[in-house]
Amino acid sequence: MKKDSGIIGWMAVVAALFVLGFVIGWFAKPTYFNAAGESMPSRKYLREFLDEMKPDKIREHLRKFTRLPHLAGTVENLRYAEQIRDEWQEFGLDSVEIVPYRVLLSYPNKTQPNYISIIDHHGKELFNSSLAEAIPDGYEDVSNIVAPYSAFSARGQPEGDLVYVNYGRTEDFSQLERDMGINVTGKIVIVRYGKIFRGNKVKNAMLTGAKGIIMFSDPADYCAHGVRPYPDGWNLPGGGAQRGNVLNLNGAGDPLTPGYPAKDYTYRFRPEDGVGLPNIPVHPIGYHDAIHLLKNMGGQIPPNNWKGALNVSYRVGPGFTNDFKSQKLRMNIHTYNQITQIYNVIGWIRGALEPDRYVILGGHRDAWVFGGIDPMSGAAVTHETVRSAGRMLRKGWRPRRTIIFASWDAEEFGLLGSTEWAEENAKLLQNRAVAYINADSAIEGMYTLRVDCTPSLHSLVYDLTKQISSPEDGEQEDSLYSSWHKRDNWTNDRDAPRINKLGSGSDFEAYFIRLGIAAGRARYTKNKKTERYSSYPVYHSVYETFEIVEKFYDPDFKRLRAVAQVRDSLRKYTGSISQLAQRHPQELNKFKVSFDSLFSAVENFTLASRDFMERLHTINREDPLQVRTMNDQLMYLERAFIDPLGLPGRPFYRHVIFAPSSHNKYAGESFPGIYDALFNTENSPDPESAWNEVKRQISIAVFTVDAAAETLLPPA
Amino acid sequence: MKKDSGIIGWMAVVAALFVLGFVIGWFAKPTYFNAAGESMPSRKYLREFLDEMKPDKIREHLRKFTRLPHLAGTVENLRYAEQIRDEWQEFGLDSVEIVPYRVLLSYPNKTQPNYISIIDHHGKELFNSSLAEAIPDGYEDVSNIVAPYSAFSARGQPEGDLVYVNYGRTEDFSQLERDMGINVTGKIVIVRYGKIFRGNKVKNAMLTGAKGIIMFSDPADYCAHGVRPYPDGWNLPGGGAQRGNVLNLNGAGDPLTPGYPAKDYTYRFRPEDGVGLPNIPVHPIGYHDAIHLLKNMGGQIPPNNWKGALNVSYRVGPGFTNDFKSQKLRMNIHTYNQITQIYNVIGWIRGALEPDRYVILGGHRDAWVFGGIDPMSGAAVTHETVRSAGRMLRKGWRPRRTIIFASWDAEEFGLLGSTEWAEENAKLLQNRAVAYINADSAIEGMYTLRVDCTPSLHSLVYDLTKQISSPEDGEQEDSLYSSWHKRDNWTNDRDAPRINKLGSGSDFEAYFIRLGIAAGRARYTKNKKTERYSSYPVYHSVYETFEIVEKFYDPDFKRLRAVAQVRDSLRKYTGSISQLAQRHPQELNKFKVSFDSLFSAVENFTLASRDFMERLHTINREDPLQVRTMNDQLMYLERAFIDPLGLPGRPFYRHVIFAPSSHNKYAGESFPGIYDALFNTENSPDPESAWNEVKRQISIAVFTVDAAAETLLPPA
Repeated sequence: MKKDSGIIGWMAVVAALFVLGFVIGWFAKPTYFNAAGESMPSRKYLREFLDEMKPDKIREHLRKFTRLPHLAGTVENLRYAEQIRDEWQEFGLDSVEIVPYRVLLSYPNKTQPNYISIIDHHGKELFNSSLAEAIPDGYEDVSNIVAPYSAFSARGQPEGDLVYVNYGRTEDFSQLERDMGINVTGKIVIVRYGKIFRGNKVKNAMLTGAKGIIMFSDPADYCAHGVRPYPDGWNLPGGGAQRGNVLNLNGAGDPLTPGYPAKDYTYRFRPEDGVGLPNIPVHPIGYHDAIHLLKNMGGQIPPNNWKGALNVSYRVGPGFTNDFKSQKLRMNIHTYNQITQIYNVIGWIRGALEPDRYVILGGHRDAWVFGGIDPMSGAAVTHETVRSAGRMLRKGWRPRRTIIFASWDAEEFGLLGSTEWAEENAKLLQNRAVAYINADSAIEGMYTLRVDCTPSLHSLVYDLTKQISSPEDGEQEDSLYSSWHKRDNWTNDRDAPRINKLGSGSDFEAYFIRLGIAAGRARYTKNKKTERYSSYPVYHSVYETFEIVEKFYDPDFKRLRAVAQVRDSLRKYTGSISQLAQRHPQELNKFKVSFDSLFSAVENFTLASRDFMERLHTINREDPLQVRTMNDQLMYLERAFIDPLGLPGRPFYRHVIFAPSSHNKYAGESFPGIYDALFNTENSPDPESAWNEVKRQISIAVFTVDAAAETLLPPA
Repeated sequence: MKKDSGIIGWMAVVAALFVLGFVIGWFAKPTYFNAAGESMPSRKYLREFLDEMKPDKIREHLRKFTRLPHLAGTVENLRYAEQIRDEWQEFGLDSVEIVPYRVLLSYPNKTQPNYISIIDHHGKELFNSSLAEAIPDGYEDVSNIVAPYSAFSARGQPEGDLVYVNYGRTEDFSQLERDMGINVTGKIVIVRYGKIFRGNKVKNAMLTGAKGIIMFSDPADYCAHGVRPYPDGWNLPGGGAQRGNVLNLNGAGDPLTPGYPAKDYTYRFRPEDGVGLPNIPVHPIGYHDAIHLLKNMGGQIPPNNWKGALNVSYRVGPGFTNDFKSQKLRMNIHTYNQITQIYNVIGWIRGALEPDRYVILGGHRDAWVFGGIDPMSGAAVTHETVRSAGRMLRKGWRPRRTIIFASWDAEEFGLLGSTEWAEENAKLLQNRAVAYINADSAIEGMYTLRVDCTPSLHSLVYDLTKQISSPEDGEQEDSLYSSWHKRDNWTNDRDAPRINKLGSGSDFEAYFIRLGIAAGRARYTKNKKTERYSSYPVYHSVYETFEIVEKFYDPDFKRLRAVAQVRDSLRKYTGSISQLAQRHPQELNKFKVSFDSLFSAVENFTLASRDFMERLHTINREDPLQVRTMNDQLMYLERAFIDPLGLPGRPFYRHVIFAPSSHNKYAGESFPGIYDALFNTENSPDPESAWNEVKRQISIAVFTVDAAAETLLPPA
């Protein structure tokens, strides 16, 4: 691939390298096999594979799959699935199938639109929020653009006074109640998007007794400085609004079939017993509409960190100022839930030597509208990887291990397609899956590489990025590693490019957090130090088009040692969590809480990992059983972190070392069991029980780290 | 081994063959390897292995380990553990270790004995039950024989009227309440031992509001016809009583650390939150004492099937007849729970070719007193297997796979030693364990072989028993298979020796029901058609001595194809469970409950298993990765039946096809989720919900059978 192949092209190379890193054989001798079973020099094939990947092709794929809106459950999205299946077959995969499920989705009512009104004391509508975003140029004739809505909102037309609660975080609600003395029971709350997952905002609003919640995109969070709104720049226009689901699934997949695949035969909960469905109406608006709701609000002026960038005072309410006291708010929400068929596309390349070891490259296909960035920039990358792999197969190449490619459906509705497939194939995946690489949006900024992955993949990521050139102008001589390193050094302690923990928010979740399969994702990102806005401005709006990528993000399609890392991470996380606990020295002492056993387990793990690394050098690499045995130890190392009992109250989050934060789905937490238990000691009415739970969680962590160490020891 | 080597000797051969059946390589080419890695003819080694096993040695082991009482948690049982460790090391195992845990045990108070009194209206004791059994000849000087007690009984001295409730089964309690109109709230119930696990009797008594429960051994259930009481025969003497734990653990292991190993670092529940601990006093008595309690009872005369073989009328009460009306019963129970160190002995033989595949032979060592039958007849078998294996290792033999030998502690207190070890090593076992063979009591009768195992082992059992001669007099020319077949043909439909489903009641439970490892057990048994008594008469009494085995059970130590079977069993179980449902045709129709999807899943499984069997013939057996891949498919087939979410209310019973019955721990149930759901539809106040649960359980079964079928298909 040429150097000037664009970010998305670049991301394709990164994705392909990730996958190849695994099919090469992880640590084992990097050998490929041709059809006759003869081993082939791997470097040569690696180079050929990468050379096969063409920026023009990626552009073509992106163009092709962003012409029409393709929301999950619509016929357009099924057509794209069929097209992907057909093309993957043509590209030369061994087999490709469409795998359907019937899951709970949520749509606006076509005949009764959703909107927010300001009403007078007769109930007459004085102002109505807009019913749709302005259609971008070139898409005027497109039908079936879904209006902005909050998927899985409850239906209803609550009326009441408005209260502004900043980002709707736990701390915002408690600040409102404690410092400002405002009770939101029976009120409608309005919060700005950003900082945490929107489903958590809705949960927080429900917990405080609000009867509805409105979310808006504030320019402070969705407009970059000096950038114009789309189509003149890549900022969010005032009429654009962020769609999105407002579930609290905690990894359950389809709300009606938690734990099991949503097949025809599967028993479904009644909708009222579904997992994570909100019971109040929810609606998203853009900042033009938000001004109308906020400008006349009364009540206190909040602290500065509650103020966004609109020309209003951000008063918290409740309700409007004196002149408008008799006006109320009414939400008109008619969104309904419906069991709907969705379609994953699954393609296979059979491994030559170890067909029963799987490497998975998956990403979603469904989009809120066109999906120019989310998800099609990633899907185009996957598509090109498949095309190149097919070309290689025709030349006689075959990977050591099986590769599975996946185009997931209904990610936007709660990671449904990927989770249902993981549920259906849980046993096979637990026994056979070596790694899962996620390919969602390939770009969310123009600054540098961002990688989120499990510690056992850190070395692999560094090794691979050293083999690719920088996509940045003037850095053609540098590696991607050094370009990335320069822009995002980890910390003062650690001189290497930053790698993040996996949180949630995309399809790796069931694979990593529930099944314990080593997982990672990569994308091009913004500069977090200077760019304050959340995600990227046009996220989940109609303005996520092919053109925004082509014109702004990637103009000439120009930028498109495992065990030791686990050990270092365990040490680091243990240090952090015990420091967090040190904030309560008296309680630690009173309730005899100690992290000594955890430190000692980590020490024990260190010895086991050292022993494992040493044995790696002494095994007979010509003996396929010896090689397989050690590879299996590595594969099951990640699985050892899974506790089948799950985290308290979150049965499908089973990873003891990592989980999405309970407070912010997008963030990853280390030792989440201990973390949550510590969190719950604050203000607990029964401190002894709360601290006992901390002790219980520490002992579970000790057990888990011990089990992981066992996995690495000689098996007999 | 000579033909006249006794039942226990025979059981040693059966156990050794089971283990060897697996280390040979299951279906794979049956080759052993010597120390130099050269393959050796397996038949030759098999024969030599069996010839190594000596009846005299087994007698010696049994003698040695039954001289002293060795209750779990006592120093004597630790000494035996050390002796076993030392001998296994001398025999030549690669490594042997003692693995301790700290679990909740229960003992009588040494200074305040437990007993039952009949008291007058002043509270004066008119009759007291005996404090101990008469010591058998030759053991007069032995100290530390624990008096009969119910382990984990609550403490207390409840007083009240007595009510007799037959065997204390669910149906007995409902018959008492509905047909006889007797409410047992606030009463003390007395039930006879037998039919169901004693812990279930206690649970039933608690549920009906009784404030204490007494269990006695009725001669009808614990004396065989024409046999004299020990020491003149093998019947239970009138002063003998059955010890035993009265927990309802449902597979949790140590009551204070469910799901996790009871190590020093492990968080423990408070005793009042422990799993399955009864909250009423419980006590066992012999039939001499029982006569005193029963003879003056008043109230109705019960149906004949409530009457045992004592010379009393078995009136149900409540309380005594008019002449004795003022007399009450008082229980004096001072048993206490204590966290106590226990010790498993674990020995290893490293596999030559696949060290990371484990075959486990385990049985417990702890006994209520001497353990002549339970468990030392089994432990002697294991010990001799280890000795022979050690001899073979010295001759240069080494098995393909790793063998693990285990001497478990605290089985009598709820399978604690084996469960804690399974919990500590769950990850390794899930990934690596091929089979678990249990060696508890090798004999419970003198009639024929009894095998309980998972369907995937049926063919193996038949093949192996065809290679051993019958232990019966006059049948030296017959195989064990044909001797067994003659005595216990399966059914009219199926012409083969009967093999039972695995229930519970011994140490295989955590391995099979929680982790999904293929498991089996074998023992010599009584003739169920003619011998009505439960278990064997002296079960858990002081009279379980070396001599009872030597004199009565085994006088001259003289009698000591996988996938298709799973398919046939699934079909059979599906047929049975759907027939059970057919008892409610109206409800099936009204609530639209259908078993069609389950039948179709089983059909699907049939196709997958046929395909698998065909591929077996075509693989290249010289290719170690191909052989390993198919062996792994077989190993993980059993694992595919595990649902990490567990059965409703029984999180540690995770096998979807088998579980101990909820109503009788000793019995195994097929499709337990569906079975329990069907059971709960009877008399449910909300039939729709109850039948919905049946539908949900059917869909879980369908999913599970589908996943099992997937496991057998070509991996890519």
